[in-house]
Amino acid sequence: MSVNTFGRIFRFTTWGESHGPALGAVVDGCPPGLAISEADLQPYLDARRPGQSKYTTQRNEPDHVKILSGTFEGRTTGTPISLMIENTDQRSKDYSEVALAYRPGHADYAYDAKYGFRDYRGGGRSSARETAARVAAGGVARLVIPEVEILAYVSEIGGDAIDPAKFDEREIARNPFFCPDAEAAKRWEKIVDGARLSGSSVGAVVECVAAGVPAGWGAPLYGKLDADLAAAMMGINAVKGVEIGDGFAAARLTGEQNADPMRPGARGPDFTANHAGGIAGGISTGQPVVVRVAFKPTSSILTPQPTVTKDGEATEMFTKGRHDPCVGIRGAPVVEAMMALVLADHKLLHRGQCG
Amino acid sequence: MSVNTFGRIFRFTTWGESHGPALGAVVDGCPPGLAISEADLQPYLDARRPGQSKYTTQRNEPDHVKILSGTFEGRTTGTPISLMIENTDQRSKDYSEVALAYRPGHADYAYDAKYGFRDYRGGGRSSARETAARVAAGGVARLVIPEVEILAYVSEIGGDAIDPAKFDEREIARNPFFCPDAEAAKRWEKIVDGARLSGSSVGAVVECVAAGVPAGWGAPLYGKLDADLAAAMMGINAVKGVEIGDGFAAARLTGEQNADPMRPGARGPDFTANHAGGIAGGISTGQPVVVRVAFKPTSSILTPQPTVTKDGEATEMFTKGRHDPCVGIRGAPVVEAMMALVLADHKLLHRGQCG
Amino acid sequence: MSVNTFGRIFRFTTWGESHGPALGAVVDGCPPGLAISEADLQPYLDARRPGQSKYTTQRNEPDHVKILSGTFEGRTTGTPISLMIENTDQRSKDYSEVALAYRPGHADYAYDAKYGFRDYRGGGRSSARETAARVAAGGVARLVIPEVEILAYVSEIGGDAIDPAKFDEREIARNPFFCPDAEAAKRWEKIVDGARLSGSSVGAVVECVAAGVPAGWGAPLYGKLDADLAAAMMGINAVKGVEIGDGFAAARLTGEQNADPMRPGARGPDFTANHAGGIAGGISTGQPVVVRVAFKPTSSILTPQPTVTKDGEATEMFTKGRHDPCVGIRGAPVVEAMMALVLADHKLLHRGQCG
Amino acid sequence: MSVNTFGRIFRFTTWGESHGPALGAVVDGCPPGLAISEADLQPYLDARRPGQSKYTTQRNEPDHVKILSGTFEGRTTGTPISLMIENTDQRSKDYSEVALAYRPGHADYAYDAKYGFRDYRGGGRSSARETAARVAAGGVARLVIPEVEILAYVSEIGGDAIDPAKFDEREIARNPFFCPDAEAAKRWEKIVDGARLSGSSVGAVVECVAAGVPAGWGAPLYGKLDADLAAAMMGINAVKGVEIGDGFAAARLTGEQNADPMRPGARGPDFTANHAGGIAGGISTGQPVVVRVAFKPTSSILTPQPTVTKDGEATEMFTKGRHDPCVGIRGAPVVEAMMALVLADHKLLHRGQCG
Repeated sequence: MSVNTFGRIFRFTTWGESHGPALGAVVDGCPPGLAISEADLQPYLDARRPGQSKYTTQRNEPDHVKILSGTFEGRTTGTPISLMIENTDQRSKDYSEVALAYRPGHADYAYDAKYGFRDYRGGGRSSARETAARVAAGGVARLVIPEVEILAYVSEIGGDAIDPAKFDEREIARNPFFCPDAEAAKRWEKIVDGARLSGSSVGAVVECVAAGVPAGWGAPLYGKLDADLAAAMMGINAVKGVEIGDGFAAARLTGEQNADPMRPGARGPDFTANHAGGIAGGISTGQPVVVRVAFKPTSSILTPQPTVTKDGEATEMFTKGRHDPCVGIRGAPVVEAMMALVLADHKLLHRGQCG
Repeated sequence: MSVNTFGRIFRFTTWGESHGPALGAVVDGCPPGLAISEADLQPYLDARRPGQSKYTTQRNEPDHVKILSGTFEGRTTGTPISLMIENTDQRSKDYSEVALAYRPGHADYAYDAKYGFRDYRGGGRSSARETAARVAAGGVARLVIPEVEILAYVSEIGGDAIDPAKFDEREIARNPFFCPDAEAAKRWEKIVDGARLSGSSVGAVVECVAAGVPAGWGAPLYGKLDADLAAAMMGINAVKGVEIGDGFAAARLTGEQNADPMRPGARGPDFTANHAGGIAGGISTGQPVVVRVAFKPTSSILTPQPTVTKDGEATEMFTKGRHDPCVGIRGAPVVEAMMALVLADHKLLHRGQCG
Repeated sequence: MSVNTFGRIFRFTTWGESHGPALGAVVDGCPPGLAISEADLQPYLDARRPGQSKYTTQRNEPDHVKILSGTFEGRTTGTPISLMIENTDQRSKDYSEVALAYRPGHADYAYDAKYGFRDYRGGGRSSARETAARVAAGGVARLVIPEVEILAYVSEIGGDAIDPAKFDEREIARNPFFCPDAEAAKRWEKIVDGARLSGSSVGAVVECVAAGVPAGWGAPLYGKLDADLAAAMMGINAVKGVEIGDGFAAARLTGEQNADPMRPGARGPDFTANHAGGIAGGISTGQPVVVRVAFKPTSSILTPQPTVTKDGEATEMFTKGRHDPCVGIRGAPVVEAMMALVLADHKLLHRGQCG
Repeated sequence: MSVNTFGRIFRFTTWGESHGPALGAVVDGCPPGLAISEADLQPYLDARRPGQSKYTTQRNEPDHVKILSGTFEGRTTGTPISLMIENTDQRSKDYSEVALAYRPGHADYAYDAKYGFRDYRGGGRSSARETAARVAAGGVARLVIPEVEILAYVSEIGGDAIDPAKFDEREIARNPFFCPDAEAAKRWEKIVDGARLSGSSVGAVVECVAAGVPAGWGAPLYGKLDADLAAAMMGINAVKGVEIGDGFAAARLTGEQNADPMRPGARGPDFTANHAGGIAGGISTGQPVVVRVAFKPTSSILTPQPTVTKDGEATEMFTKGRHDPCVGIRGAPVVEAMMALVLADHKLLHRGQCG
């Protein structure tokens, strides 16, 4: 299987590096006849776009997405949809040191160990800039699953979590942190700005809920809905943990506490709890699908760290380029996109096998 | 991609239900010329086998694995290796109620929603019994990666964690919990036995460390080593969370705290920390690969729970069959197997692309 | 992708060698709820089974197929269907010479070159005996496409072709050659028996027609229906050529001669010719799908041929074991099975993408 | 599997329509460190490029290929290589009639039957223009297999075949037909020009030989080298037949005639014949790999043909746009590209499994 491709029936392949002329995604297997235009995709890219506040990297990219194929007279044709985003604000001069030594926490050394050399400009292929291509592809995926509503938000930054009692969906768009708790957003301003000013960085947790997923999506045993979501999320830059439903907390509950009892409902059973996060046996249950994703603190910091050069000599490095003090913030639109991409694929896969 | 198949070059396909005549795995893409016999695989199955203590299900299966193809004169031939394990201790009479109503926390309802009906005997395909096939396949995978040493152990049961200061690898085989901390193992006897006697269940966390993985395995961006591990682990029955390295704890660190500095080493850099769990940018760094896996408490409990019948009527259910009070315990050999299967595949994939 | 697996949604994986204990297929992605029993599959295996006349190998195998998983109460459950056929008439003593030298025209040398050694008993994995597993899997595929009627027959043996004017479908089951022309069948008795008595062998052409395939199956551009059929057929043992519709003859026609004009029909257009063999642009047109497959003469002959030993010494070999004087005859049921397997997969793939 | 993607480890995905802004290919899994530039790929595109003589379509495209990703400082990095070719000579006004009715022999009706509607401009996705993307990807594949020399030529046009005794490799580049026989090329001028002047078209046979393929490439049983080649070739526009080695002629030989005897050679056995076309049991034998491909006559002709409109009414159509009188001619570079793509993939796949 192609290692830069994700999905089974609804699939996408991404390409491009941080400082190349462009990056893009080819979306294959999309159902025909769906109304689509660049304007349908651009809002998702705008949400992920950097340079919109002082809390994210100052690299300023318009991230305009172009559709190069796969549509005709405003509708998808069922053929591959090629999406391209041009890179416009590369500053390759920032990266000369990176060519010679390995930044701790970055993929520099691992890429060299694997491939023998690397495009070191802005992280090359390992740059989080690639997630723009996923977000564009995710915009197409959403058209495939109009029955599903996906919402991701940051639930924790630097160890400071939102108060579930203060959850207000409308807040998410009102602050630069995708935060549903207005008070937490206020606190986070200080946390993130503090990290930014001191040249440090902080981690974050993103939570994503997909409502409207019907029961029956998922393909046991090695295409389970939760396993595919885990792969989708763990593959996002800087992610180190994934939970479905109660996740690790479930390991501390008893069977009684963790049960999701059912009672008769209008369409199928009504569940009186959702510890399972909407998935049982790898198949959706009709409850909201709930995923939680841990982002490590940005590895690029101003404090020098011991490291080695390409030639194996000891040295120290700190990062001079433009970077996010909390890469998890802009992770929220990426998590949403990956959720959409997994669900679109499973909708089609289920339809294929089960009619 | 076939949904009951896992892997890219080194792949395995499993089949079989809890109460069918047998279950098995077909391992494809195995390198030729590896010495192999059933005796090489049986110890892993024995470790996973139930009925060995009062802390696991009393279903008693010898779980003898047979090799039906793919070997000749004691060596792998490069052709598919068919592994079969016969079911011998099915007691289908236990499951009559399950045919008519949905057990909360189980996959019963989801399977019916997807497929229209299900093999309800012992959970059918969704039974954890299928993991025997993975463990057998994992035994083959280990032959492919002799350079790697894999060790999984239970690090937490019912919220009671081991003390890292008391970690002793030799203890793991000395207690029925795969516990590396002798004192914790003592405490767990009470926890698990208490759950068993009261008809309840508890969750667990399994940790797995793979030492000896060279730098360079992994295939960015949609075949990342950590993403494949996440899918592999999340796909195990009852798993709700996966972490690589520090996982969710990393989201609460600063960039300085989370850095893995390097200094010159004998073969490549020496890292002075391993927050990353041995993976950067989806590629192994040469450090031990560390994964942590959360198992929910067994859904089968004796306390009746509200649920619905196939016809949508309200009812109550509790589980009468034989079950594990803590399904996570026997998860340890399964986690080891999945680790081996992912690493074997990535070794071959890396060799294929990079020579 | 697993190299012993074929298909995209409806997939099968085969395993087993000529002289191992058994061989089998795991069918994955089958729709749930289809009525199935071993009796549904056995007739296809019986048609392919050797030892039924003096015109095929005298190896006598009952080829009883067992269903080990994936069904419940007589219906498919949507989980993997494991099919197993035991080997009962192996005579390994026949093959001692084959261990030391390479039979011309066989895969012996190629397997050694690839894998370093081989299971030489009866051809091991490269034996045409493996096609029994395909035929069993094909029996499942037929259940997925009840709207399609598939018919394969031998249209030419040893260069002697049937007379299309004498085509009678009912004749196919009345002679040991799957021949639809009674007079040709008479002639072929002499041709095949002559080859058998002189220790020689002859080739054959098998034609396969699938009627009832609706317009719209196939997945351009790299999953075209004709490309998948070409792979399916060329992968059968001893096949050296595949044609769709007029095939090579089309290369000798003008555009006018090769046109398939349309006129208004009851359901979609009626075509007044079918040079295209029912496929345009990789997609079915609603006309019968027509494939023609060339089988080379059996490589096992009694005339000694110059060859080399494993150690590179010159020697001569002829085949002593039991073999088909015309392997193409028993190819007919295999071609039918591969047609069914490709069509079932494309039906589900089309439904997945296009609803 | 993605239906617009071909290959297993070395894979490519194409996108684009005849009259969209551009078309392209994303090549994934390419080994790192290979020297590459656009100038390495352009000659192959130039060979396929239309408008170079009166014997091919007069659509005039420069077909300049751009590399957008996956290279750094003149070498492949191991990450996806995005190749783009802009469309510059579209004349969409030619295709208005095609929007309303189905051209016989074209994919028009099949696309509508599958997708509900289609991009009718220049054939949309089903246009042979897509083969430019394959040819570009094939240029990358060649860099992966420097040990292999690939040569395709037209061996027959309109039923008039070359004389093998007059085969001269140097002639291939000296005439507009990729013809290795100078006398045949002279004759073909009249055949093709006659077809062009009368608004008719003729078919062709392309032969392709790959020398230098070592023994051992290919992956039985469902990734056989010949099966993958068959899929690769049958998937090219207008192809209706594929042969390996002697192909259909082998079905008319006896076992003695068809044998490829061996004698001791410098490196492995020397074969004294190559009826098998360099492949046995799906694995290369070290002999030249020989494939023959039948192209039907171009479906676009000036003679009106009965057909139906989208609404099912009877009508007549002939083609007004610019077209090749013999589409098989420009098939030669495409066949070469597909050969390279299959071989590159199998080289890496073999290395992955067998080291």
